Amino acid sequence: MPSQFDPPSGTRDFLAADVEQREHAFAVIRDVFSRYGFEPLQTPAFERLDVLLGKYGDEGDKLVFKILRRGEHEASGEADLALRYDLTVPLARVAAAYGSQLPSPYKRYAIGPVWRADRPGKDRYREFVQCDLDTLGSQSLLADAEALSAQHDALAELGLPDFTIQLNSRRVLAGLLEAYAVQPDVGAGVLTSLDKLDKLPPADVVAELTGRGLAPEQAAEVVTALTAPDSVDRVRVALTKTDEGAAGLAEVDAMLSLLSGQVPEGRVVFTPRMVRGLSYYTGPIWEVVTPGVAGSTGSGGRYDHLIEQLGGPDVPATGSSIGIERILPLLPGAAVGPPGRLDVAVTVMRPELAVESFGFAAAGRAAGLRASVYLGSSGKLGRQLKWASDNGARWAVIYGEREHEEGVVTVRDMGTGEQTRVLAAELADFLARAARAGS
Amino acid sequence: MPSQFDPPSGTRDFLAADVEQREHAFAVIRDVFSRYGFEPLQTPAFERLDVLLGKYGDEGDKLVFKILRRGEHEASGEADLALRYDLTVPLARVAAAYGSQLPSPYKRYAIGPVWRADRPGKDRYREFVQCDLDTLGSQSLLADAEALSAQHDALAELGLPDFTIQLNSRRVLAGLLEAYAVQPDVGAGVLTSLDKLDKLPPADVVAELTGRGLAPEQAAEVVTALTAPDSVDRVRVALTKTDEGAAGLAEVDAMLSLLSGQVPEGRVVFTPRMVRGLSYYTGPIWEVVTPGVAGSTGSGGRYDHLIEQLGGPDVPATGSSIGIERILPLLPGAAVGPPGRLDVAVTVMRPELAVESFGFAAAGRAAGLRASVYLGSSGKLGRQLKWASDNGARWAVIYGEREHEEGVVTVRDMGTGEQTRVLAAELADFLARAARAGS
Repeated sequence: MPSQFDPPSGTRDFLAADVEQREHAFAVIRDVFSRYGFEPLQTPAFERLDVLLGKYGDEGDKLVFKILRRGEHEASGEADLALRYDLTVPLARVAAAYGSQLPSPYKRYAIGPVWRADRPGKDRYREFVQCDLDTLGSQSLLADAEALSAQHDALAELGLPDFTIQLNSRRVLAGLLEAYAVQPDVGAGVLTSLDKLDKLPPADVVAELTGRGLAPEQAAEVVTALTAPDSVDRVRVALTKTDEGAAGLAEVDAMLSLLSGQVPEGRVVFTPRMVRGLSYYTGPIWEVVTPGVAGSTGSGGRYDHLIEQLGGPDVPATGSSIGIERILPLLPGAAVGPPGRLDVAVTVMRPELAVESFGFAAAGRAAGLRASVYLGSSGKLGRQLKWASDNGARWAVIYGEREHEEGVVTVRDMGTGEQTRVLAAELADFLARAARAGS
Repeated sequence: MPSQFDPPSGTRDFLAADVEQREHAFAVIRDVFSRYGFEPLQTPAFERLDVLLGKYGDEGDKLVFKILRRGEHEASGEADLALRYDLTVPLARVAAAYGSQLPSPYKRYAIGPVWRADRPGKDRYREFVQCDLDTLGSQSLLADAEALSAQHDALAELGLPDFTIQLNSRRVLAGLLEAYAVQPDVGAGVLTSLDKLDKLPPADVVAELTGRGLAPEQAAEVVTALTAPDSVDRVRVALTKTDEGAAGLAEVDAMLSLLSGQVPEGRVVFTPRMVRGLSYYTGPIWEVVTPGVAGSTGSGGRYDHLIEQLGGPDVPATGSSIGIERILPLLPGAAVGPPGRLDVAVTVMRPELAVESFGFAAAGRAAGLRASVYLGSSGKLGRQLKWASDNGARWAVIYGEREHEEGVVTVRDMGTGEQTRVLAAELADFLARAARAGS
């Protein structure tokens, strides 16, 4: 039941364990992208409204969170800013703004939240993080292969279980339409129908295609070519009949060859029926498929005219994006961060002993550990040890009257209950040794 | 001159070097806070409007970025959401929402952007990052000392040059007003005037105080007590005359004692005239002062009733905040990240050799280095070496016809120009050794 204290619909609060899992994943991705020579870019959460509107189609425009004008203009009810809807439009603006200050090609990654006023649902949020990698200014197929390879390595290092990457090319699709004599004016609609072969029975797709104006035998022939067990061979034969098809095939084969040494055998699969809905792709396209996950866990492709359409300069571009919000729930949780909130919990038995206790916590931190004094009001050891245990502390440092008189502390191993008397001045060394021994 | 491609007024794009400096600083802060046993919290960029409004006073409410309702409701011109204005109201909401799921006390840090529709100016942005540290649920002065100590350590590890932390207590201020017989109804105004002693000549402050209803000799006495060379001694004497003053003094002395072992001598200074404008503080207050920086580079204090006023549970609270946007320009830049964009730049002399070149870049990454192939269209070695040099590469891996025939690569040290022939299969090992030798 939603409460008045819940975060706004479609958004989430991340408490410590979630933050740590997420930040760990982002750090892994950043590290991989950076090793490929991509550099980070951060842009503001909002853009001027005119920068965003008209870039995502009518449906997209409706999903943009718009920000009211301020001060005396607020009463107008008009918006002048909007939360970013993706990381690509800001990239186009940055490419236009900083032009020659940017390296060429400009290889950048961006990891950050975007906002869409979509209907919230399972795995569909109004605030979610995108992880994008793009290269602007290179026509080389090496840039496409690099974008795919970096994405692959990031997913592999995250520990995403047995995913595959379906590879295709827009030119393969164009060649297919030509080979099966599909009229150019219905081509886009035909691709939209073919994109459903993953979800619908072939007969339904054939029916859709005839509805779009294909002859029944023509529709059946295309669908058979894309679904038969020897689909890839059939398609290869068909593609060689046209220039565009042959060029698309050469593109796919060159990608497969470039990637052959980089990714495990069978990881990247030529999938002629994979269409990717977005019409702006112009070359290689790919999609990450993970068993048990509906929808894409990652995607990418070449989009040579989009940056200009989005208000940027006319540069060739290619890139990939990781569906991190879908992936996070699949990752092994165990590897994330140390368990518990504290390593060292220091008692405060009497206010007069607090200064020393405060110093013992500092000694724990000097040993590289997470350490804190007891901040409650109980002077009872049992209560304070329960606090230590509740916080998952590995050691409690007990400092009472007797320890004070003798210049020592009692270090209690919270796992075994074993207690060791340690000279106060030697606590940092003792804890550092214990940490090395235990890790 | 602002261009259509600039980010919105008061916001910034961060290109690679800026992102790296900022992320490095945030990582340092996170690490220190985490070693003190504080845990991270992340909340959405926006909150429901009713959660935010009325929490920051009329002036604050005007600075809130409001988000238009969506879909059919957009035409109403009404807002239902707003960008967060600080990290404290979200904390209050989280404390109310998750109550018993949170540890007690709840020690959390939050580092993230907030948005205020302030007039942009030097060091004043509409999107800026706050770094907050708070402990909810502890009345212990240890919690205050810990919040100050953690903030201090973070600033010290960031390398902020010679800062001091002015320490005072709201109870000291209350005791002072009592000691100098200031009528309670003008107390808040008197504190506002005394807060200006840093900026205005004492005589001007005396004039302000008489304007507020203090007798001239009374005003002069207070101002003298707070500005005389022996100010602290005078104030100490005055404070012992009242219960509240004595209690405040005891609080300050206990804080100084707790911190004495943790921070360098003279770093934390009892400063009776330091008021901190915000009326919600109830106990110790402090402010970080850095030479050459107008305004605060950090602050903190106890605010025992604020969380409840902000819609949260009735819990005691204390915390500190780092003025990171003011601090970032002061930090030594040299320590941040490796120079250049790439460590290893791999040539692609002919398309047929690209597969191997692609593999050599992977070998560089396997050695833990940032490595990329040339993505341009030139087949000329000079052009490709210029690209390597422009990207600050430490090594260029040259792979042409001759290398291909002989199964080797030529590794060029971009600093010295020295070239080494290396067996292709041994490139990763060679680079790993070279990196160890050079770092």
